[in-house]
Amino acid sequence: MNRRGRFDVLFSGRLAAAEREPWRQALRDAAPEFTWWDDDDVDLPRQSIAAAVVANPAPAALAGLPQLRLVQSLWAGVEKLLADASLPPAVPLARMVDPVMNQAMAETALWAVLALQRGFFTYAALQRAGEWRPQAQRRAAEVAVLVLGLGQMGRTAASALAAQGFSVSAWRTGLRAAAEPPPDGVAVRGGAAVLTAMAAQAEIVVNLLPLTPATRGLLDAGFFAALPAGASLVNLARGAHVNDPDLLAALDRGHLKHAVLDVFNAEPLPAAHPYWNHPRVTVLPHVAALTDARSAAAVVARNLRALRDGAPLANLVDRARGY
Amino acid sequence: MNRRGRFDVLFSGRLAAAEREPWRQALRDAAPEFTWWDDDDVDLPRQSIAAAVVANPAPAALAGLPQLRLVQSLWAGVEKLLADASLPPAVPLARMVDPVMNQAMAETALWAVLALQRGFFTYAALQRAGEWRPQAQRRAAEVAVLVLGLGQMGRTAASALAAQGFSVSAWRTGLRAAAEPPPDGVAVRGGAAVLTAMAAQAEIVVNLLPLTPATRGLLDAGFFAALPAGASLVNLARGAHVNDPDLLAALDRGHLKHAVLDVFNAEPLPAAHPYWNHPRVTVLPHVAALTDARSAAAVVARNLRALRDGAPLANLVDRARGY
Repeated sequence: MNRRGRFDVLFSGRLAAAEREPWRQALRDAAPEFTWWDDDDVDLPRQSIAAAVVANPAPAALAGLPQLRLVQSLWAGVEKLLADASLPPAVPLARMVDPVMNQAMAETALWAVLALQRGFFTYAALQRAGEWRPQAQRRAAEVAVLVLGLGQMGRTAASALAAQGFSVSAWRTGLRAAAEPPPDGVAVRGGAAVLTAMAAQAEIVVNLLPLTPATRGLLDAGFFAALPAGASLVNLARGAHVNDPDLLAALDRGHLKHAVLDVFNAEPLPAAHPYWNHPRVTVLPHVAALTDARSAAAVVARNLRALRDGAPLANLVDRARGY
Repeated sequence: MNRRGRFDVLFSGRLAAAEREPWRQALRDAAPEFTWWDDDDVDLPRQSIAAAVVANPAPAALAGLPQLRLVQSLWAGVEKLLADASLPPAVPLARMVDPVMNQAMAETALWAVLALQRGFFTYAALQRAGEWRPQAQRRAAEVAVLVLGLGQMGRTAASALAAQGFSVSAWRTGLRAAAEPPPDGVAVRGGAAVLTAMAAQAEIVVNLLPLTPATRGLLDAGFFAALPAGASLVNLARGAHVNDPDLLAALDRGHLKHAVLDVFNAEPLPAAHPYWNHPRVTVLPHVAALTDARSAAAVVARNLRALRDGAPLANLVDRARGY
């Protein structure tokens, strides 16, 4: 709180107006006790801003804020923020971790895995061809799903898949045991050494890893070759996890059966990209889990109150780890 | 058991050879203590057949079997069997009720409802048009799903949808209370008088009714008009529940947003049918829940043993009710 009894919060982001206004309103509704400012306010009190809530902020938008003690992202992925050299290095940075967003991600994962298990992408192609051709039906327990990443989204998705009866394993990058126990019915292993062995047992891979130097380009020719023939990829994390030429080659030679891709190395996906018309690729426009303004604003409000009250902050990013 | 200590069972059905052989083997594996016969066995002992296991039997295939005490269907729907005048009227008829098949049906319902909730059919159309256009994201709890029919399949589907967070209600044809309690989190009502009011609250209708004189043609112009604008239909039961011209009219004027149809008045769906190319229709080739030979054969074996031992038979059809 500053000398005038105010707690000044900057909402900084490059968003379309139609997107920005609902966010502005949701944040003010969730935390009306704070004084909210926008980037372009002419009287923005740079000297007293205590926290910044950011969604794709302009470069250097967070420079010159001497009282800044928290940068709270509205998005779950923070790799772009971390790449901004003007981000004050000593200020804590928090990711968005929102149960509603985790649930949305689990819904997308479940939809994609059910579609792959039961052949619904195949039936869509058969409908376009006007062909009535039933396929063999497989039980969920016969389908081995490997979830990459065991953060909040990976855990929620793995749990939903296991609850639906799939044979689920999950891989995390690190070797250290997680603070939380593994999700019910999910076999968890960690570390680079076991990834190839886990891939060899997987029929469907669901990628929910954070994007870090350690995971960039992880889904490459070597990884695809480790998968059994006929496997499928569901990438809901970041486009840069995937080596696109390697994925296209694996699809084209029929080693991979299908890819459901929500994220891409360039977004929007360029019009000429071969993914658009590839018969084995389902393209989604980065919608696997949108941040929900209502629930996310409540998450933001809780962290702002913790900052004001000197309580522990939630969802802090380990900058060395990258998420 | 006949005088020679045998218990003779007839497997009667018109199936493609590729389908018939796995069934023959699965039935013999599940119930090896019985003596199995096929329609075309030249020495078929018509005088001593105690039970018939049927899958689309030829007309009159079950006539002239004086010891017949059970007709066990491999399919869940028995309306075609009941329409066969040569079905011995006094012999108990059992439907297939198989947890694995119920689970397969619930998977299809869940996949279709997730796709409608999250706009995945829309995204498929946008991909074909090469358009990157995110849609608003809605929470499962905001989507009201009405399950028609509360037999084993309806119950399993309603439970799976409720567990996934959807707002689920279920309608059954009869007024009498069901023997089993309603599925957790599902609001159940029954009787023709409440159907219009329930439809008015439903955004997605999942049809899992049996086909009976009371339900034939139930999904007609009046029913569609009762649904709110933008509602969708998922028909996983029988084609004859739907008045096709009425459904096409409701889709064409935009009152209904989408229909996922697994069953049709004529199957295979004729090549010239407007459903094939309709932008608001997803066509599946009657695959929402295939009978699983392994689990269904075990269900058959249990009922045959009950018959042999004089124990109560399971899954008996009430011929007056029609299912």
